[in-house]
Amino acid sequence: MADGPADHRAALALDAELARACIESALNGQTDPVADAMRYAVAGGKGLRAVLVMEGALLFGIDRALSAPAAAAIEAVHAYSLVHDDLPSMDDDDLRRGKPAVHREWDEATAVLAGDALQALAFELLCDTVCPDAARLVLVRGLARAAGVDGMVGGQAQDIAAESAAMPLTLDEITRLQAGKTGALICWAATAGAVIAQAPPSRVRALQTYGECLGLAFQIADDILDVEGDAALTGKAVGKDAAAGKATFVSLLGLDPARARAAHLVDTACDALSLFGEEACTLQALARFVISRQN
Amino acid sequence: MADGPADHRAALALDAELARACIESALNGQTDPVADAMRYAVAGGKGLRAVLVMEGALLFGIDRALSAPAAAAIEAVHAYSLVHDDLPSMDDDDLRRGKPAVHREWDEATAVLAGDALQALAFELLCDTVCPDAARLVLVRGLARAAGVDGMVGGQAQDIAAESAAMPLTLDEITRLQAGKTGALICWAATAGAVIAQAPPSRVRALQTYGECLGLAFQIADDILDVEGDAALTGKAVGKDAAAGKATFVSLLGLDPARARAAHLVDTACDALSLFGEEACTLQALARFVISRQN
Repeated sequence: MADGPADHRAALALDAELARACIESALNGQTDPVADAMRYAVAGGKGLRAVLVMEGALLFGIDRALSAPAAAAIEAVHAYSLVHDDLPSMDDDDLRRGKPAVHREWDEATAVLAGDALQALAFELLCDTVCPDAARLVLVRGLARAAGVDGMVGGQAQDIAAESAAMPLTLDEITRLQAGKTGALICWAATAGAVIAQAPPSRVRALQTYGECLGLAFQIADDILDVEGDAALTGKAVGKDAAAGKATFVSLLGLDPARARAAHLVDTACDALSLFGEEACTLQALARFVISRQN
Repeated sequence: MADGPADHRAALALDAELARACIESALNGQTDPVADAMRYAVAGGKGLRAVLVMEGALLFGIDRALSAPAAAAIEAVHAYSLVHDDLPSMDDDDLRRGKPAVHREWDEATAVLAGDALQALAFELLCDTVCPDAARLVLVRGLARAAGVDGMVGGQAQDIAAESAAMPLTLDEITRLQAGKTGALICWAATAGAVIAQAPPSRVRALQTYGECLGLAFQIADDILDVEGDAALTGKAVGKDAAAGKATFVSLLGLDPARARAAHLVDTACDALSLFGEEACTLQALARFVISRQN
């Protein structure tokens, strides 16, 4: 993959497609509404997390075919989280990835069940990752923690609590919240390839730093898109945070400082990968792409 | 454990308590609302699935301390399924285990998140089960499949679909539905001890047959309790199925034939364990207890 944004989009599309193919194959032709809703929820995403897994594994010479189930697993968890977050009792969003949210296309019960089944499917897929059993178990434990009350669910709970809190969140609080809500899964994805390869701890740590910085930069970019973005491109409602009086990186820092902070985080992310030399250029370019994206 | 019902209740209570202690320890003193809702959801259950895991493991000389995390995992999945099933968009139940359902005690968002986090926690707990890595992965894959769209979620989806269907379900359809909705987790629990012990296939199959028959007998007993039970004892609303015009084993078979079928299933379950000799008397007594229970 070369450095140009078009090539990255092609790689994103390829990796995401491979991950979706794994999910499709696991669903084994089922045609009931919940299975259809699961497919629908997984379709049309950017596949960022799948790309992190596959490109991270390639750093260690692990072919996409071997890491694809782990890439599919993280996309399944991410998709489940969006389906549940969009529920009326949660963020109450009707539009996702340019289509009606699952609870609008089907109904709330189907959305709850499709999300639940996607989470279960993720752990089934992890068992298909081609690596030693010990590494598979590191993936399982890591994903369970990243998805759970100490990670993604905890962050989402803090986010919902903040909406009815008397005081808007501080920068520290938002950083912590986002480290759980979006950061934990991104970090898991960034390090999964190294885990599959049973790489030495220094290399896992480097990818961990990359993942932490990338996750935060990604969230800042998301907040910027909520202010500046075009719903036609983002495929979801924009301006929701400001309308809800919600503290975001943009409301707390201002637009230009938020942009500068995201760029600085991406630099740190890229620097962390310097020990990989030229091999890391794809992940470095991906980090730059994340803060320049329009959706 | 002797054969008397009081002793079984004590064993149920002990095993369930050990499983809950594992969950408590995994929650590590967290005090946010989602963690509190997770504890609340796990508390007060019969712990049948935990008992199956621990007593099944004891058949192979595996101490409760080694199987407790797997027992905790299945209780976490079971608790999550109840929290989500009780949601207004699903079965819309306000009472569970004699207390307000999670979405009534907190709110719907907390109920969705606590359920989601309990499912993630289950897979984390499985990684703590004391057995070889290969066996742990069999547990992970098996639980993921039992909980997913081919198992529990699929059964619940069929159950919800049946409510708005023009025709009530047939006996075959209900049997299939329940094999997913409640049977899959019970089967996983019944065989988990053998998996932990890396027992020979014939012994796993015997426990599989036991689990399948027990699961169905349990569901028939549940349908009987919905007709005959006392809400003060069952801790949940009764008479709901008939009020909803829902086909159940009782509505399709009649009360006495339903009772006879449950008793026959329990006999088959007990016979399947005859190859274990005297060692299996606890699991056999448990099966008999399941159809005589008042809650």
